[in-house]
Amino acid sequence: MLEELKRKVCTANLDLVKHGVVLFTWGNVSARDPETGLVVIKPSGVAYEVMQPDDMVVVDMDGNIVEGRLRPSTDLPTHLELYKADARIGGVVHTHSTYASAWAQAGRAIPFYGTTHADYFHGEIPCTRSLTAEEVAEAYEKNTGTVIRETFTEGGYDWIGTPGVLVRNHGVFSWGKDAAEAVYHAVVMEAVAKMAVETERINPAVTPAPDYLLEKHYQRKHGKNAYYGQK
Amino acid sequence: MLEELKRKVCTANLDLVKHGVVLFTWGNVSARDPETGLVVIKPSGVAYEVMQPDDMVVVDMDGNIVEGRLRPSTDLPTHLELYKADARIGGVVHTHSTYASAWAQAGRAIPFYGTTHADYFHGEIPCTRSLTAEEVAEAYEKNTGTVIRETFTEGGYDWIGTPGVLVRNHGVFSWGKDAAEAVYHAVVMEAVAKMAVETERINPAVTPAPDYLLEKHYQRKHGKNAYYGQK
Amino acid sequence: MLEELKRKVCTANLDLVKHGVVLFTWGNVSARDPETGLVVIKPSGVAYEVMQPDDMVVVDMDGNIVEGRLRPSTDLPTHLELYKADARIGGVVHTHSTYASAWAQAGRAIPFYGTTHADYFHGEIPCTRSLTAEEVAEAYEKNTGTVIRETFTEGGYDWIGTPGVLVRNHGVFSWGKDAAEAVYHAVVMEAVAKMAVETERINPAVTPAPDYLLEKHYQRKHGKNAYYGQK
Amino acid sequence: MLEELKRKVCTANLDLVKHGVVLFTWGNVSARDPETGLVVIKPSGVAYEVMQPDDMVVVDMDGNIVEGRLRPSTDLPTHLELYKADARIGGVVHTHSTYASAWAQAGRAIPFYGTTHADYFHGEIPCTRSLTAEEVAEAYEKNTGTVIRETFTEGGYDWIGTPGVLVRNHGVFSWGKDAAEAVYHAVVMEAVAKMAVETERINPAVTPAPDYLLEKHYQRKHGKNAYYGQK
Repeated sequence: MLEELKRKVCTANLDLVKHGVVLFTWGNVSARDPETGLVVIKPSGVAYEVMQPDDMVVVDMDGNIVEGRLRPSTDLPTHLELYKADARIGGVVHTHSTYASAWAQAGRAIPFYGTTHADYFHGEIPCTRSLTAEEVAEAYEKNTGTVIRETFTEGGYDWIGTPGVLVRNHGVFSWGKDAAEAVYHAVVMEAVAKMAVETERINPAVTPAPDYLLEKHYQRKHGKNAYYGQK
Repeated sequence: MLEELKRKVCTANLDLVKHGVVLFTWGNVSARDPETGLVVIKPSGVAYEVMQPDDMVVVDMDGNIVEGRLRPSTDLPTHLELYKADARIGGVVHTHSTYASAWAQAGRAIPFYGTTHADYFHGEIPCTRSLTAEEVAEAYEKNTGTVIRETFTEGGYDWIGTPGVLVRNHGVFSWGKDAAEAVYHAVVMEAVAKMAVETERINPAVTPAPDYLLEKHYQRKHGKNAYYGQK
Repeated sequence: MLEELKRKVCTANLDLVKHGVVLFTWGNVSARDPETGLVVIKPSGVAYEVMQPDDMVVVDMDGNIVEGRLRPSTDLPTHLELYKADARIGGVVHTHSTYASAWAQAGRAIPFYGTTHADYFHGEIPCTRSLTAEEVAEAYEKNTGTVIRETFTEGGYDWIGTPGVLVRNHGVFSWGKDAAEAVYHAVVMEAVAKMAVETERINPAVTPAPDYLLEKHYQRKHGKNAYYGQK
Repeated sequence: MLEELKRKVCTANLDLVKHGVVLFTWGNVSARDPETGLVVIKPSGVAYEVMQPDDMVVVDMDGNIVEGRLRPSTDLPTHLELYKADARIGGVVHTHSTYASAWAQAGRAIPFYGTTHADYFHGEIPCTRSLTAEEVAEAYEKNTGTVIRETFTEGGYDWIGTPGVLVRNHGVFSWGKDAAEAVYHAVVMEAVAKMAVETERINPAVTPAPDYLLEKHYQRKHGKNAYYGQK
C-alpha cells in the first residue's frame, strides 16, 4: 500500500544525505497520505546505503504499524505530534545537522539576519525549552512533540510561516506540505544556521534585519501576490 | 535568438552550483548582448538540475520580455540597474553564498587583508546601506540596484575596479565583462570573505594590508603593464 | 591467516578516508581476533590508495610480528595497551581528525551538550594529560596508552560507555567491539567535536545538557531495554 | 627536454586542486632537475582543467626561458630565490589556501600545538614581515623570496626542518625534496593552520605543546633513527 508515497519518503531520506544534513542514520523523514491519513516513515537505524522504498513503515496516527516488517524510527511519536498540530503538514524531517544542532545545543533561536532566512521563515527560528526529567521519563519522543507544540502556541508561531524548530540540546525538526518540502526546509535551516553564526562573528553587535524586509521577502515567495518562481 | 548567449548564461548558472556558491535556486546569472543591448537571464525558481539554455529569458533594458516562455528571475530589475550603471558590464551574478552573505548580514565591507583580494578587487568590497521601508515597498528589486549605485557613487568606487558588492541583510551581486567573469568574481568574493573572517579571528587587532601591495597586485593583473597570465 | 579480519581492517582504514577523518596516512585501524587474541593492524606510512588486505600486519599482544612483510603502524603499542585495558575491545582507531584534534590540542574534554553526543558517549569525552618528558623518552607510544588508561581509571570512565578519548597535544583514539564500530566512533567524535565548538561560539555561557537527557539517549540505544534500531 | 619532470610538475599542480588548496589558477608548482639545475614551472594563468605537461616552462636559475611556448608563473622569481637558498630544495609550491592564508593575512606564525604539526615542521611555521613599498616597487616577486630568506636567516630556521612559510598579507610557500613533497607540505600547512585556529577558539589561553613532544614526533619521522613508515 501507498507504494508511491513510500518511494517519495525513501528518496527524501536519501536527499538528506545528499545535502549533507545527515550522517550515518541520524535523520528521518515521514509523510502523511492526504487520503487515508496514514503516515509513512523511515525504519529505525537502517543504513541509507541499503534502504529501499519497501523498508518504509506505514503507521496510523496512534503509531500502530499498519504495514511493514521493520520497526519505525524511534522519533515516530514526535512526527505524529507535529501532524496532529496542523492539518496542513504533509511531511516531517528530523536531523542532527551540524550548525542548526549547535544553535539547539546553545539554546538560542536563530535571529532573522537576512533574506536567505526570510525567503522561508517568517521570523526567527524558535528553540524549545529543555524537557523536564519527568517529560523525558514518561514519554520522551512524544513529549518532544508536546514541547514543540507548546513553543509554537506560547510564541504565537504559525506552522506554515515557521516550518521548522530547534529542539533544545537535541537537533532539528522541520516540516512542509510533503516530504520533499520538509527536506528542503531542513537544508535551509542548516544554511541559515551557519550564515547566522558567521554573521555574529563578523559583527558581534549585529541586530536583526528590518521587519519590512522580512515581510517583503516572505510575501514575494509565499504571500497571496507572490511573484517568485513560475506560475 | 541569441542562442549562443543563452548557452553561456545557462552554463554560468550551473557553474555557480559547481563552485558551491549557490544552493537550490538561490542565485542567478544574466548577460548583456553587446550588439543588441538585450539581456539574457535565468528564469525564476527553476531547478538547476533541469535547466536548459532554452529556458533562458531574453528581455530589453526596460525588463520587457522579448523572448522566452518562462518568467525571468525576480532579481531582474537589480541586474538592469547594474547594466545601466556602466556600459562595460556584460554579465551580472547574484548569490547568497555563505561567507559573503554573512558579511552582508553583518553590514560590514570586507577589508583588504591580502593579495587574494587585491588580485581582483582594487580596495575593500563595499556593503550597501539597508533599503528603507519606502524603497522596499515602492520597487524592491529596482531599488536594490539604486542603492548599489548610490554606494558606488558616494564611495567613489569604480565598477571595473570593484566588480562586486554586498547588499546589506541580503547577499552578493557581482559583475564582469561577461557572464563567466561575473561568476568568477562571485566565487572570488566567497573565498575572500571566508579568508577575511578567519583572519580577524586569528588576529582581532589586524589592520588592512599596505596600499602599495594592493596597487601592485591589482596592477600586475589588470593595469596597462599587466604581466600576469598569457599574452 | 586471519584473511577475513585483514579484509575488514583494510576496509575500515579506507572508511576513515571516506568519512573525511584521515588525510594522507594520518590514521590507523586495528582489530583483535577473538579466537586467537592476535591483532591485525595497518602497516606504517602506506598510502591508502594502494593499500591491500594483504599489506595488513598480524601481531601478538606483545607486539611481535606473527605474519606480514611490512612494519606495523608506529602506534601499535598504544593499540595494544587499549586491548589490554578491556577484553571487550575488538577494534581500535587512531586519527588526527580536525575538530577532535583541536580539542586535544586545546587540552579540553568535550562537554555533553546534546543528544548527538549522548547517543554514543555516556558523558563527556575525556582528554588525557600531557605525557612527561620521561614518558616520551622511555616508550612514547606505549605510554600514550598508559596515560589513556590512567585517565580512564582516575576518571572512572567505562571503556564501553566512553568509546574514545582525546590525547593531549595529539589526536584521537577510539574503539569498539570491532574495527567498523571503532571507525564509527571516530567519525562520531569528529562530528560531536565540531558541533561542540560551534555551540560554545553561539552561546559562550552554555552549560552541559541535563544528565537525565544523557541517560535517556544513551540507554535507548545501548541500555538493556534499548529500543533504537532493529531487533 | 625534461619530459618526465614536466609530467611530475603538471601532476603536482593538479594535486593542489585535488587536495582543495588551490582555487582557479591560484597556485603553482615548480621542480628543479638535479642534473642540469634547470627549473620546470607551471605557466602563468592557465586553467588547471586544460593544463598539459607540455605547457610547463623550463627556465634556468636566472629565470631565462630555456624551453616552452608560454610565459612562466609570475611567481617564478620567488621560486628561484628558494632554490638558491638551499641546494636540498627540489620542489617549490605556492598557494593561497584558505586557513594558511588567513594566518598570513593575520601576520602570525602558526604555533606548535600538536603532533600533526610536529610530524612535518620542527617548530612554529614562521610568517615573514611585510615587504616595504620600495621592495614591492623594485622587484616584487624576487623580493618576496628575499624576505623569506631573511626570515629564515634571522629566525635560525632550517630549510628542511621548516619546509614552508607564511608570506605576510599574501599566502603560502612550501618546498621539499621534489614537487610531490612540496605539495604534501602545502596540504599539511593548510590542515595544521585550520587545526590551530580551532584550537585557539576552544581554549583562548592555550600554550604551545612541550618541546620534547615536538622533538620526539619530528625525529621519529625524520631523525637518523626514524622508525615511521617502511624501510
